[in-house]
Amino acid sequence: MQPGKGRKGKSLKQRLVLKSSLAKETISEFLGTFIMIVLGCGSVAQAILSRGHFGGIVTINVGFAMAVVMAIYVTGGVSGGHINPAVSFAMCLFGRMKWFKFPFYVGAQFLGAFAGAATLFGIYYDGLMSFAGGKLLIVGENATAHIFATYPAPYLSLTNAFADQVVATMFLLMIVFAIFDSRNLGVPRGLEPIAIGLLIIVISSSLGLNSGCAMNPARDLSPRLFTALAGWGFEVFTAGNNFWWIPVVGPLVGAVIGGLIYVLVIEIHHPNPDPDFETEQSEDKPDKYELSVIM
Amino acid sequence: MQPGKGRKGKSLKQRLVLKSSLAKETISEFLGTFIMIVLGCGSVAQAILSRGHFGGIVTINVGFAMAVVMAIYVTGGVSGGHINPAVSFAMCLFGRMKWFKFPFYVGAQFLGAFAGAATLFGIYYDGLMSFAGGKLLIVGENATAHIFATYPAPYLSLTNAFADQVVATMFLLMIVFAIFDSRNLGVPRGLEPIAIGLLIIVISSSLGLNSGCAMNPARDLSPRLFTALAGWGFEVFTAGNNFWWIPVVGPLVGAVIGGLIYVLVIEIHHPNPDPDFETEQSEDKPDKYELSVIM
Amino acid sequence: MQPGKGRKGKSLKQRLVLKSSLAKETISEFLGTFIMIVLGCGSVAQAILSRGHFGGIVTINVGFAMAVVMAIYVTGGVSGGHINPAVSFAMCLFGRMKWFKFPFYVGAQFLGAFAGAATLFGIYYDGLMSFAGGKLLIVGENATAHIFATYPAPYLSLTNAFADQVVATMFLLMIVFAIFDSRNLGVPRGLEPIAIGLLIIVISSSLGLNSGCAMNPARDLSPRLFTALAGWGFEVFTAGNNFWWIPVVGPLVGAVIGGLIYVLVIEIHHPNPDPDFETEQSEDKPDKYELSVIM
Amino acid sequence: MQPGKGRKGKSLKQRLVLKSSLAKETISEFLGTFIMIVLGCGSVAQAILSRGHFGGIVTINVGFAMAVVMAIYVTGGVSGGHINPAVSFAMCLFGRMKWFKFPFYVGAQFLGAFAGAATLFGIYYDGLMSFAGGKLLIVGENATAHIFATYPAPYLSLTNAFADQVVATMFLLMIVFAIFDSRNLGVPRGLEPIAIGLLIIVISSSLGLNSGCAMNPARDLSPRLFTALAGWGFEVFTAGNNFWWIPVVGPLVGAVIGGLIYVLVIEIHHPNPDPDFETEQSEDKPDKYELSVIM
Repeated sequence: MQPGKGRKGKSLKQRLVLKSSLAKETISEFLGTFIMIVLGCGSVAQAILSRGHFGGIVTINVGFAMAVVMAIYVTGGVSGGHINPAVSFAMCLFGRMKWFKFPFYVGAQFLGAFAGAATLFGIYYDGLMSFAGGKLLIVGENATAHIFATYPAPYLSLTNAFADQVVATMFLLMIVFAIFDSRNLGVPRGLEPIAIGLLIIVISSSLGLNSGCAMNPARDLSPRLFTALAGWGFEVFTAGNNFWWIPVVGPLVGAVIGGLIYVLVIEIHHPNPDPDFETEQSEDKPDKYELSVIM
Repeated sequence: MQPGKGRKGKSLKQRLVLKSSLAKETISEFLGTFIMIVLGCGSVAQAILSRGHFGGIVTINVGFAMAVVMAIYVTGGVSGGHINPAVSFAMCLFGRMKWFKFPFYVGAQFLGAFAGAATLFGIYYDGLMSFAGGKLLIVGENATAHIFATYPAPYLSLTNAFADQVVATMFLLMIVFAIFDSRNLGVPRGLEPIAIGLLIIVISSSLGLNSGCAMNPARDLSPRLFTALAGWGFEVFTAGNNFWWIPVVGPLVGAVIGGLIYVLVIEIHHPNPDPDFETEQSEDKPDKYELSVIM
Repeated sequence: MQPGKGRKGKSLKQRLVLKSSLAKETISEFLGTFIMIVLGCGSVAQAILSRGHFGGIVTINVGFAMAVVMAIYVTGGVSGGHINPAVSFAMCLFGRMKWFKFPFYVGAQFLGAFAGAATLFGIYYDGLMSFAGGKLLIVGENATAHIFATYPAPYLSLTNAFADQVVATMFLLMIVFAIFDSRNLGVPRGLEPIAIGLLIIVISSSLGLNSGCAMNPARDLSPRLFTALAGWGFEVFTAGNNFWWIPVVGPLVGAVIGGLIYVLVIEIHHPNPDPDFETEQSEDKPDKYELSVIM
Repeated sequence: MQPGKGRKGKSLKQRLVLKSSLAKETISEFLGTFIMIVLGCGSVAQAILSRGHFGGIVTINVGFAMAVVMAIYVTGGVSGGHINPAVSFAMCLFGRMKWFKFPFYVGAQFLGAFAGAATLFGIYYDGLMSFAGGKLLIVGENATAHIFATYPAPYLSLTNAFADQVVATMFLLMIVFAIFDSRNLGVPRGLEPIAIGLLIIVISSSLGLNSGCAMNPARDLSPRLFTALAGWGFEVFTAGNNFWWIPVVGPLVGAVIGGLIYVLVIEIHHPNPDPDFETEQSEDKPDKYELSVIM
């Protein structure tokens, strides 16, 4: 039709198109985590900076969940929409993703979360500055650090905090495995992100009180680091009895337990183990949540 | 491809895989009820322990409903996702499940609910301890027993309480039957759990005031027993004029009435009774909600 | 397989099965409207009787909408799930339902709504009695009449009230026509009820302030009559400057306008008018929302 | 069957049916934007005029989002359901719509939004008049101008305000492109409007605090002009340091950036660029969101 335009377009495209599948997946995970942090932590920001007038527990829980939904819709077809090192860890451990990809996925997730925190800081710069007379505080009623990272409730011991993150992430992964298990009830193709969104709503409505239900090392550590550098200071790491490492390590442990429970209690008992499908899948297509256990 | 690995994997799997369909279904119902209680009662816990700051009627109703949704996604393809003795009772009575399975299903449901209550107690141990100065109370503004089991409103007579549980469960089963009736409007396959979730949202928004809308003997009795043992004391059974038996017996009665209404008013009048489908279904596949009436 | 049982079952069924399609549809509309009133007005009841502690605008709007969703899932495959005389009126007027069915549909809807109001009164009898010291009031902070029927805001003139009901029902029907128009974007089959539920959420969130957004003569008049008889007295009819007839007449007018706008602006311009489909549809299958305009 | 009636009907239809595809699309965009403003701004009206008793941030965010959903269901099959000049601009820029249609789409959107604002003013005329003793105010606790158009938060600088509109619309378009990208994860056909609704919920929950998250020149400018003429006065344009042009220009910039990010990061790397589909699409079918980049 328009051959000149077409050719020029193709050649310009060719220069931009990524040949490497790993490069595509890495950039996709970066973008997905970026979206999750801006829209997810943004929901927290709106509630806190408006002192509850334009947001609360409902908009935070729904907002963060739908931020994850949207991040998966943008990245799911390319990188599987992990946007969470604990998910990538479980995928590798259960044979669903090759280990050499793991550092690229996780690196992209941490960078994307950091970039998201910085962007959100920019969008709400005026609001943050006016909120506490120009101060960026970690504790008290004018605190804003918990917009970005999670902090424990005053009553919470470190033991309970660790158990909390393990159990919450355990439920997350166990049910994510169910949602993508086509031999179980089966969420219709293309609606899995919304089922995951509903899952995040219920987990953050039920297990969110202890410490905000991070369930994701990248979602918590990168924005925390950003706040440390952006003016809240490195007390963001010492706060809550050095709480910072709990939402980093706990989710990794919980993800493995959750995956294991689903596999042992439900997955391996399916009448048709469908091994051909699994092999083919892991060779040709991008890594997704579908579970292929090789013990 | 990797024959050695594959063979080793299969032999290890073989040792773990359950041969008996009934064993699979029993463990599935255990897990499903466990999930429902941790995430469902967890939504109540978050609202109460935060004194309304991080939860309220919206997060409780949505959280409990989505806990049921997730429990069904995890277990629906294996055991049908009853997670409720009243549902299993109706399924048996309407010829949809064989009676010999009934005690296994119900046993698993009661055990799963008990384990769920214990797990939730563990997750919120610090929160429960700090809430009322270390006391575990049943009545008053510092009460926490209603996190686990339901209690009647002060105004409620036993007659009205019983009618309440009968009518609520009647609506539950009547509409669950409609949701799984492929000869009616038909929820798309794989989305039935979400339709059930929406159903639970509306029932708990409309018929939840009298006594918290348990509609499920296992959901109510097992956590109540747990609280009796865990420190709240056996007054959890005498409270509300010995209310405890109402959410146990009422739902069984209501489930039968609800199923009967749907069958008599809608189901039997369908032009094509589709008897082959029903027979085949009950022989080969796991029991699900689909209705096959044999009168 | 079990021939004796089967024969006995069939003969018992035969005695109960309705031969007449109209009888089936009538009883289906009765049940659907009954469900809508118990669960829908029940959501209002829970909010009012708890003085906002266990319900509010969110649970009312979501609850009433999901009550409609569930009523349509129960009845949609049999009678089309009108559960609203204004919808049935528009269906007849636009050639989608034969006029001789109209009185049966509407009669069933009015009776179902009355039965629903009576059932709800029974379920919340203790609550209603204790709410205002045994009095059943129409105005004031202890009023409970608006659990059942709608009343106008104090500022509202009769002209504005009538326009309000016309416009709200206009939007309802216009968008319902779009939701069931397979030649437009098209809601997936089996999810139309949920799309209608979302529609009712937005209409009651945006146009509900003036007079509670009844949009349905049966939903409003039958429960109002019930309250008149049950103890609130016939002031329920004179209240609000004899407001009672507005949610009866307004929706009928609005439904016609809404259907007409959709047909004139969108429907008739579709490139493929598909007339065979329309004819065949109206002969053989139960009446549903699908639009077939014969001008 | 009824030949006389049929012929008469067809001839009457023929006179009304629009031959021109552009005329259909223009009238469709008018209707869609009209629906969005009445139901969307109506949700704001209900919250403000009831002083929070019958609406709040949840009903506003959900109401506006579902207003967009319903507008897309009504218009999506005809004109693609842009209902936003920024969306139409991006569609033209990325080769998805021909530029000659642009002024018709945008004109229809501005007119539809103006008509919607006028209709909403009529529906809530009594409410608006009684709210502030007959005065129509722009600032203060009795202000009602922000029912129709958006105004910035007191803390917000013009620079931050502009960045806010750019970033919010960037996320809107980036994710809308993903939702309609059939080579990505893929929302099931017919459910894209609901995914967009969820997207609008999260954006207005997270990025709505600065200035109400208009993201749409027609949604903001036309109702603002209406308020200027209807009695609020032309201070609606000077308020907020002449804020009015920000939700007009910002979204156009953000839409382009958002589309560009999606294309460069995700779209062009898909293994199968499917060029035939794109060409065919742009020739024969009405313009929809599907992305066809010609660089």
